[in-house]
Amino acid sequence: MHGLMQDRPLSLPMLMDGMEHRFSRKHVTTTQPGGTVSASYGDVAERVRRLAGVLDHLGVPAGARVGSFGWNSQRHLELYLAVPCSGRVLHTLNHRLFADDVAHIVDDAADDVLFVDRSLLDVVHPLLERCPSVRHLVVMDDGSPAELPAGPRVHDYETLLGAARPVAAFGNIDERTAAALCYTSGTTGRPKGVLYDHRSIVLHAMTLLMADAFAIGEDDTVMPIVPMFHVNAWGLPYAALMAGANLVMPGPVMSPERLVRAMETCRVTFAAAVTTVWRGILPHAGDADLSALRRAVSGGGALPVALSRAFHEKAGVPLTSSWGMTETSPLVCSARVPSETAPSLTEEDRIAALAAPGPPTVLCSLRLVAEDGSPAPRDGRHRGELQVSGPTVAAAYFGGSPGASAFTEDGWLRTGDVATIDPFGVVRIVDRTKDLVKSGGEWISSVELENEIMAMPGVLEAAVIAVPDDKWGERPLACVVPVQDAGLTAEGVRRHLSGRVAKWWIPEEVIMLDGLPKTASGKFAKAALRRSVTAGGD
Amino acid sequence: MHGLMQDRPLSLPMLMDGMEHRFSRKHVTTTQPGGTVSASYGDVAERVRRLAGVLDHLGVPAGARVGSFGWNSQRHLELYLAVPCSGRVLHTLNHRLFADDVAHIVDDAADDVLFVDRSLLDVVHPLLERCPSVRHLVVMDDGSPAELPAGPRVHDYETLLGAARPVAAFGNIDERTAAALCYTSGTTGRPKGVLYDHRSIVLHAMTLLMADAFAIGEDDTVMPIVPMFHVNAWGLPYAALMAGANLVMPGPVMSPERLVRAMETCRVTFAAAVTTVWRGILPHAGDADLSALRRAVSGGGALPVALSRAFHEKAGVPLTSSWGMTETSPLVCSARVPSETAPSLTEEDRIAALAAPGPPTVLCSLRLVAEDGSPAPRDGRHRGELQVSGPTVAAAYFGGSPGASAFTEDGWLRTGDVATIDPFGVVRIVDRTKDLVKSGGEWISSVELENEIMAMPGVLEAAVIAVPDDKWGERPLACVVPVQDAGLTAEGVRRHLSGRVAKWWIPEEVIMLDGLPKTASGKFAKAALRRSVTAGGD
Repeated sequence: MHGLMQDRPLSLPMLMDGMEHRFSRKHVTTTQPGGTVSASYGDVAERVRRLAGVLDHLGVPAGARVGSFGWNSQRHLELYLAVPCSGRVLHTLNHRLFADDVAHIVDDAADDVLFVDRSLLDVVHPLLERCPSVRHLVVMDDGSPAELPAGPRVHDYETLLGAARPVAAFGNIDERTAAALCYTSGTTGRPKGVLYDHRSIVLHAMTLLMADAFAIGEDDTVMPIVPMFHVNAWGLPYAALMAGANLVMPGPVMSPERLVRAMETCRVTFAAAVTTVWRGILPHAGDADLSALRRAVSGGGALPVALSRAFHEKAGVPLTSSWGMTETSPLVCSARVPSETAPSLTEEDRIAALAAPGPPTVLCSLRLVAEDGSPAPRDGRHRGELQVSGPTVAAAYFGGSPGASAFTEDGWLRTGDVATIDPFGVVRIVDRTKDLVKSGGEWISSVELENEIMAMPGVLEAAVIAVPDDKWGERPLACVVPVQDAGLTAEGVRRHLSGRVAKWWIPEEVIMLDGLPKTASGKFAKAALRRSVTAGGD
Repeated sequence: MHGLMQDRPLSLPMLMDGMEHRFSRKHVTTTQPGGTVSASYGDVAERVRRLAGVLDHLGVPAGARVGSFGWNSQRHLELYLAVPCSGRVLHTLNHRLFADDVAHIVDDAADDVLFVDRSLLDVVHPLLERCPSVRHLVVMDDGSPAELPAGPRVHDYETLLGAARPVAAFGNIDERTAAALCYTSGTTGRPKGVLYDHRSIVLHAMTLLMADAFAIGEDDTVMPIVPMFHVNAWGLPYAALMAGANLVMPGPVMSPERLVRAMETCRVTFAAAVTTVWRGILPHAGDADLSALRRAVSGGGALPVALSRAFHEKAGVPLTSSWGMTETSPLVCSARVPSETAPSLTEEDRIAALAAPGPPTVLCSLRLVAEDGSPAPRDGRHRGELQVSGPTVAAAYFGGSPGASAFTEDGWLRTGDVATIDPFGVVRIVDRTKDLVKSGGEWISSVELENEIMAMPGVLEAAVIAVPDDKWGERPLACVVPVQDAGLTAEGVRRHLSGRVAKWWIPEEVIMLDGLPKTASGKFAKAALRRSVTAGGD
């Protein structure tokens, strides 16, 4: 027996109603080299309809991929809507990947058109000849002086928009239609494509509005510092439009000083960035009035408590952790102190608790799987591989991408992270399965060691990797980046760890480095580190 | 091109995961005549599995309707889950309806089994012989001394539960499967059935968790005073379970004194009731410590500002309005002051603003249709019939229910309410289309007149109806219930209105009554009032 409710799809055109009616005077502000540009959602909606007309004019077929190489900007926001609302698939690309990988991804996705920020032309244009599927290149002028290449396949965004016929009504899109494509940053092997549908994007945005997740509301001003090419900027642009919150887009101007200034000027209430970016912002956080900020979310790597505490001292709010993957839209966990444990916590404890990923959102089911395949208990102590299920979680990779082994037989995603879950649902990530150090048959968590080392004064960054050991199988090796002139020594680091972790966890080897290799999305690139350390040691 | 996200249905079994893992120690507390009873969600989940086993044991087919006559209680909550999670349809019934209507509804729904609170047996049992579809009657002992009727078709809930085999795993239910059935209270004509599906219930619960709607979170204690037979108690039980909030169920003990005491004892943070119930609670609100209360939601009729202000003085929070219908799950609008208007408001203004239904939730689209069928502008002044669309809104009525005219050709619901919408999306209900007074070709809003009269000291309740008039077509007539010994006069009421509304709006006739007829869900029964006033006047 079927219900009798209206058959209204959870698809992105539903966001247009709010932009054109309730929130038409709310706005998106983009920081550019020469200053800031603002546009009302009413105007953005009109431009979205024109942009869909541009895609019609260029003859982009339904379901075809439209690639974007762009900073966080109003124009990128317009692509976020016009492409999926008109039945195409927005393929956001990370220009920081190796050229080989970028060319491979454009080819793998068979992008029909590319939209490129002018400042990224020198990275993207040389790739064109290796990507036969690309019929058009549309350049978005972000204030860069880079010259526009000549040729009939190259267009200016604003010129096309000015000449376009706006699409009056977006069709009724089936919610399982593909809407967006994003490739993982590929710390191991080739990047893999995740193909989001309208339904997963809308449901994910809905969870971001919930009180126990990000609680994004109409009175927020949301600043996605996390790039729009990275898992839809964690879904924040869609969530902000759904709630009617203002948006602040940092554009190509990503220096910590400018980010902090934009947060102050625009009275940002909600900002999100990867941990390494917050680390860069920290020294400047005290230079501005950030009193409007109610929440600063950190993701894309463990959040050291020391970093969060320092941010709290300067900005008045702690950093709060979150956890997710490209494969999970991405938000799965959002830091929160359960009411049953909250009353016993000091302010210090609370800040520390918010540095854990926290409980899952309402649409995600979690389970922990022990090494022998049995379910690990949710007691906050037992570890297991974290597996996720839900309508915002991938079921497979796109097209030619390998990686079927990431999915279990019953359709859950293997995250590759080792975690604990406590009785209140709070998730703590222990390590990546492949980054755990197995010493004398026992596991050592590289993440826990890193957090302890990064809490030490004088330490800027730290990464712990496993190195082969004749006696123990593997031993941890700590790579530490000291603050300039901190006078840090290997022995000092080992002394700091003594009493903080089990004695047998303490690395014999601590090496000092000028910096750590990072992935295109800002995470520690441990595979690269292992290679360089091993090569250097030989 | 289809997306590659997991095919996970939005269906009610997903709530079991939270109850059995993250929120297993959160609880539902039911007030009964002899005291209160509490159960953890972990225990409730186990009983839900047993109750599903009971339905199997009784041979209730998939898709069959399971009727419930119950107060708000833990057992009713168990039915809310076990019936739809096992593929049956929960049909909640309002025992306050006329016996004829109840018999008609049970027959129309072809209820297979009825679950009845013991205290309601005397209402329900006599109907049985008129309802041939009902094979079993299961009695839930709510502390009433009413005797259990004899017979093989009559069972005791706890006895069945004790003997049942728990259902280990609920199947993967398609989200468009029917889950719950509720009939409108039928102010005009026969009650009409609305058949909710799993998808609409889950999506509706998700909106209740959003920051700009009810913001229900894990740290809430939610008290649905609105009956569980009335549009799923506004979806609050499902929302609370989804968020992991505690629940407080008032049970059969519905006196204002006991409600206020339960709010104090259980530290209720969120309570919802129809306006007339809040009016009854008001005199007692100052007798208890309601400091935990963060939000008190009113619905099911216009919320007079004077009532909200008086509640604010006693309880520390104002009442906040909301708007919806049985046909809309029900929440469509939830009172909120848009950020663009908030800064200019005094505290008094803010309380007044929260007495309007407010902006729509993210899943509902609204439009205003003028008398000539054209769209009315959203300027806060123009009026039109409010029409609603969205996945939580009915597309048709159940089975034999009449009322196809409630739906437009393009599938929107005609609400029968006349409203304005301002540029920020705030909805204000002007009147029911059928309650408007058309005087000399111009509309007079009965709701506005009522609000002005109810703001007058000495007035308990007021209802304005149209009476035929030779000269003007119709004129308003005010029926006023004075506070005892207030010395209210018709002329005093007219004087009060002078200067507050247009002169030609002031009713020539103001009559004093001891009380107003109400519908089974507590709204003013204007049709009945019209009949009795007209009859009395002849």
